[in-house]
Amino acid sequence: MLNTLIVGASGYTGAELAAYIHRHPHMTITALTVSAQSADAGKLISDLHPQLKGRVDLPLQPMDGISAFAKGVDVVFLATAHEVSHDLAPQFLDAGCVVFDLSGAWRVNDPDFYQQYYGFTHQYPALLEQAVYGLAEWQGDKLKEAKLVAVPGCYPTAAQLSLKPLIDGGLLDLNQWPVINATSGVSGAGRKAGLANSFCEVSLQPYGVFTHRHRPEIATHLGTEVIFTPHLGNFPRGILETITCRLRSGVSQTQVAECYAQAYGDKPLVRLYENGVPALKNVVGLPFCDIGFAVQGDHLIVVAAEDNLLKGAAAQAVQCANIRFGFNETESLI
Amino acid sequence: MLNTLIVGASGYTGAELAAYIHRHPHMTITALTVSAQSADAGKLISDLHPQLKGRVDLPLQPMDGISAFAKGVDVVFLATAHEVSHDLAPQFLDAGCVVFDLSGAWRVNDPDFYQQYYGFTHQYPALLEQAVYGLAEWQGDKLKEAKLVAVPGCYPTAAQLSLKPLIDGGLLDLNQWPVINATSGVSGAGRKAGLANSFCEVSLQPYGVFTHRHRPEIATHLGTEVIFTPHLGNFPRGILETITCRLRSGVSQTQVAECYAQAYGDKPLVRLYENGVPALKNVVGLPFCDIGFAVQGDHLIVVAAEDNLLKGAAAQAVQCANIRFGFNETESLI
Amino acid sequence: MLNTLIVGASGYTGAELAAYIHRHPHMTITALTVSAQSADAGKLISDLHPQLKGRVDLPLQPMDGISAFAKGVDVVFLATAHEVSHDLAPQFLDAGCVVFDLSGAWRVNDPDFYQQYYGFTHQYPALLEQAVYGLAEWQGDKLKEAKLVAVPGCYPTAAQLSLKPLIDGGLLDLNQWPVINATSGVSGAGRKAGLANSFCEVSLQPYGVFTHRHRPEIATHLGTEVIFTPHLGNFPRGILETITCRLRSGVSQTQVAECYAQAYGDKPLVRLYENGVPALKNVVGLPFCDIGFAVQGDHLIVVAAEDNLLKGAAAQAVQCANIRFGFNETESLI
Amino acid sequence: MLNTLIVGASGYTGAELAAYIHRHPHMTITALTVSAQSADAGKLISDLHPQLKGRVDLPLQPMDGISAFAKGVDVVFLATAHEVSHDLAPQFLDAGCVVFDLSGAWRVNDPDFYQQYYGFTHQYPALLEQAVYGLAEWQGDKLKEAKLVAVPGCYPTAAQLSLKPLIDGGLLDLNQWPVINATSGVSGAGRKAGLANSFCEVSLQPYGVFTHRHRPEIATHLGTEVIFTPHLGNFPRGILETITCRLRSGVSQTQVAECYAQAYGDKPLVRLYENGVPALKNVVGLPFCDIGFAVQGDHLIVVAAEDNLLKGAAAQAVQCANIRFGFNETESLI
Repeated sequence: MLNTLIVGASGYTGAELAAYIHRHPHMTITALTVSAQSADAGKLISDLHPQLKGRVDLPLQPMDGISAFAKGVDVVFLATAHEVSHDLAPQFLDAGCVVFDLSGAWRVNDPDFYQQYYGFTHQYPALLEQAVYGLAEWQGDKLKEAKLVAVPGCYPTAAQLSLKPLIDGGLLDLNQWPVINATSGVSGAGRKAGLANSFCEVSLQPYGVFTHRHRPEIATHLGTEVIFTPHLGNFPRGILETITCRLRSGVSQTQVAECYAQAYGDKPLVRLYENGVPALKNVVGLPFCDIGFAVQGDHLIVVAAEDNLLKGAAAQAVQCANIRFGFNETESLI
Repeated sequence: MLNTLIVGASGYTGAELAAYIHRHPHMTITALTVSAQSADAGKLISDLHPQLKGRVDLPLQPMDGISAFAKGVDVVFLATAHEVSHDLAPQFLDAGCVVFDLSGAWRVNDPDFYQQYYGFTHQYPALLEQAVYGLAEWQGDKLKEAKLVAVPGCYPTAAQLSLKPLIDGGLLDLNQWPVINATSGVSGAGRKAGLANSFCEVSLQPYGVFTHRHRPEIATHLGTEVIFTPHLGNFPRGILETITCRLRSGVSQTQVAECYAQAYGDKPLVRLYENGVPALKNVVGLPFCDIGFAVQGDHLIVVAAEDNLLKGAAAQAVQCANIRFGFNETESLI
Repeated sequence: MLNTLIVGASGYTGAELAAYIHRHPHMTITALTVSAQSADAGKLISDLHPQLKGRVDLPLQPMDGISAFAKGVDVVFLATAHEVSHDLAPQFLDAGCVVFDLSGAWRVNDPDFYQQYYGFTHQYPALLEQAVYGLAEWQGDKLKEAKLVAVPGCYPTAAQLSLKPLIDGGLLDLNQWPVINATSGVSGAGRKAGLANSFCEVSLQPYGVFTHRHRPEIATHLGTEVIFTPHLGNFPRGILETITCRLRSGVSQTQVAECYAQAYGDKPLVRLYENGVPALKNVVGLPFCDIGFAVQGDHLIVVAAEDNLLKGAAAQAVQCANIRFGFNETESLI
Repeated sequence: MLNTLIVGASGYTGAELAAYIHRHPHMTITALTVSAQSADAGKLISDLHPQLKGRVDLPLQPMDGISAFAKGVDVVFLATAHEVSHDLAPQFLDAGCVVFDLSGAWRVNDPDFYQQYYGFTHQYPALLEQAVYGLAEWQGDKLKEAKLVAVPGCYPTAAQLSLKPLIDGGLLDLNQWPVINATSGVSGAGRKAGLANSFCEVSLQPYGVFTHRHRPEIATHLGTEVIFTPHLGNFPRGILETITCRLRSGVSQTQVAECYAQAYGDKPLVRLYENGVPALKNVVGLPFCDIGFAVQGDHLIVVAAEDNLLKGAAAQAVQCANIRFGFNETESLI
């Protein structure tokens, strides 16, 4: 049994991680922590997330320094703010833990990226170079020896799973940038009070047009520019992305289907649609990314759906841990 | 044209009042105000409530004392916190305005009530005695000469419209207290950030069981005790109340129907159902309170629906103003 | 491994049963069936319920007589219409299967009940007498030898779990009938096209006032009359019941708490709230019934929440099967 | 007062038309009709649409031939199926009525279009040529003398209002087709039972990818090809369209803003956003089309929102009628 620490466990992703690890046959929760300043410190996680009542009734312990928590811990999940993850990851690595970070702090191997898009100066360029980007279906071998895994962002997961096989396979005409229209449930904004997330204020609308920091994350890892327009949807969880691309002249529907089948035919958490495209409800509460597509002439529309808190966060983190430690890739997830 | 001031115009009720007064043929908005400390001061009301864009693009002026705003004003709507309404109403009355208050500060003619349920000491017992409770269908004559109208709470409006004719008509066996189960949309909590109103946290649930201050408001005005259980519903607006009562022995369905017909047959904003009971969607966005009922033996179930922001607040306030000034009762409302 | 047949597997309950049995370590799905006339015959269950894609991709086989399906089957779940269950259960029993029926056809040991409330004449009074009512927390020993288990209705499950300990413990003054206000998600109406279930037509509203057939089911098994008012809620799944009762004079909050603790302290699928009452979201997607309460004087309000498709149907059916066959009571459910 | 007939008044658009005409100072409803075979024949429109109770309590009369209804009628609104409108419009024109058709039967001046996209052979090419396409902001003068107005489709209204000024102004590089991602509320599918519109089946998902017949309507009237991907959203009403375009090299944000201001600065039902983009809730229940945009380099994203039943149907029909008869363009709409 791997001793597992979940840091920043009060949020929606933390609650999902706690549920997965609780039922994992090879991992056990040693502690759940929150910031020492948090008003939630000392509460049970099931007080904040009553769906966990009777399953995970552990306290959220205030963490003021890692020393009291790192000892004997094999695995750490950081569900913390970007700056906090930036500071904590090196400390837990020094303590001998394997770290899975769900923030944006370790996703792009370029210190300038953080200055530009996250507003802080990255202090650990050498470590950044060693961090493995946890897009699980594409990083299998690298994950097996990773010390620090940067779990991808929610939007980038669906976008890259959709586009990477096509781009790597040379099927797209990239003179025309892929247009990614994405809609996310409100949980993507985290568990916090805010007028923008207030029930009566939420309705379908774009936000962060041209400015969302998931765009450069997508573009960097795909190696091509994209137009990315995120929307807030009037539902608690799930992401649907509709991606409009230009095929290279002559590429057929069959070639696209074969490209996807080759990439994901043996991947248990990507579900390909032979006909039609996914709906959001197909994936909510589940660890899958569903992908379907349609072709007309040189135009290709790919539709991907995932649960932003699961394949877009907690489930992919656990999937990466499963791969890292040689467990069944879907252990505790399905 | 009556010069009209809306105080506390940044909230959901304020926005509805602004829309009604804007299209009222005999009333005109002189100013919209918010607290001088409000972060919304100086913004347009249509920045906060974009549905008003192109209709009411007036600024929310910071009000620090009434003097700059009361001059020349005939009518004031107070959509302010209870304590604020308590302080402002006497000042506007002194300035010669007719005041329609949508808070709880003037609804019950008993100073102890405020200490017990609202947590402040009422300073104006004489004025409290003169305030007219604006349950419009039942206060017509008193409203015509009112200086200060206390617009009823959202839950009490539907509850009283449902029960008052039955109680006044002697149809109920009050040894068994009426059981009022009510569900309100989230806008009832006001326009403010708060975890409890956060999109992902909202789902159907009771709150304030045995402790909600609308219970004593209902009981006082009906002159009988009730059991009142409010619920938060997963919708932005509307209230549905299901009220279970005991009929006096021998009272028939026909008698109940006649009782309601007599009370509301000529009332334009109460809609009676001859068969069946109302659904929430029948009233959302509309100024009506809909009432239906069913009888079995001595058991009576009454169902009432209204929009909490309209018949439960802004529309009833304007209805009271229409009656007060001799306009058509439904002017600007339908 | 018990060979398991799910009859009527195309509906929402059938899909939940399929998911549970699929992951059950001691049960395996031998076939999923639908009526021979069904337009869904021959489709994969995951075509109808895409959340099952990659997990349960079995065909819905048309069943025209049980002979082709009963052989070698240990366990049958009937998720069929009342009349169909009435006809099929005896046949499967004759074939040596243990039958768990999720319809209303075997719930009340009184043939007249079916005539009056379900509109058909029950043909099997002797079998009706042997059927075990599957309110799992209360029928443990009887379930262990049951041949035919009548899984309770969704509303009756929450209502009885809430009231039975209080009534059996003599804590209620039953001269005043308990008032059960219940709100169910739309899936309670089943998976079928109908204007009443159409997205734009759904909003919170009572239905079946005084006439819903779950009232006599509740009353019969509790041995006391109740007032039951079901509502349709604007959400896909979940039931919340707010139950207003009269305590016998002198009964304290502590006695109520102790009564519940004694009844359910060791029951894994009933979660008691020491403070406060449950919200719908606490149980959606989960097999629990959550119960909380508040007392004021002689008035008691109990609030129960469950997922109508799970503890109100599929999960309770599997729970009954687990008890019947000596498995862990929560096997495959948590 | 213009005598006004609403044909096909049982649907969602019919109900909105009835509400608008009911409160119109220069138009009066002479009759509401449904097909003679309709199960709704003889019912009150307020039985089907209870929000109209107390406002429009007129019967839905079965219409079996126009003769009993056309006499003395000045204006006819056809809210009927495409084939029905195709048959009825010429008859009402012969009877001297001015016809506003909300179906697709008269929108494109090309008989082949109907064969290809609507599956019927258009019988009236001469009349088709005279029909005026009622995109109100762009057809003002033509509307003033129109006999037959083809009110645009819901999606095409927002798409064309967004793109037409840019295209006509030469601001776009049309080598790259505009990509229109649109999400509509469920009411767009009409008031009818169907599994796809069933409450539990609805979630965000694309449909009609590459095949929706609003694409050729948009392309024909804009004179350029577009990629159009409609989605079903989990809300009853409203449309949001996010349109990604390529600007001609060197075109600035200011030029785009000026282009829109010139087109719509004096148009009361198009609301331009100086900053930011619209949200769906800004327009639900209102007759506006809201437009905002953002520019980055040569990339332009335009966001348009409207209520599919109002500016996308009933409100635009009344707006056309107002223009046609010389009334205030927004009469009864705001």
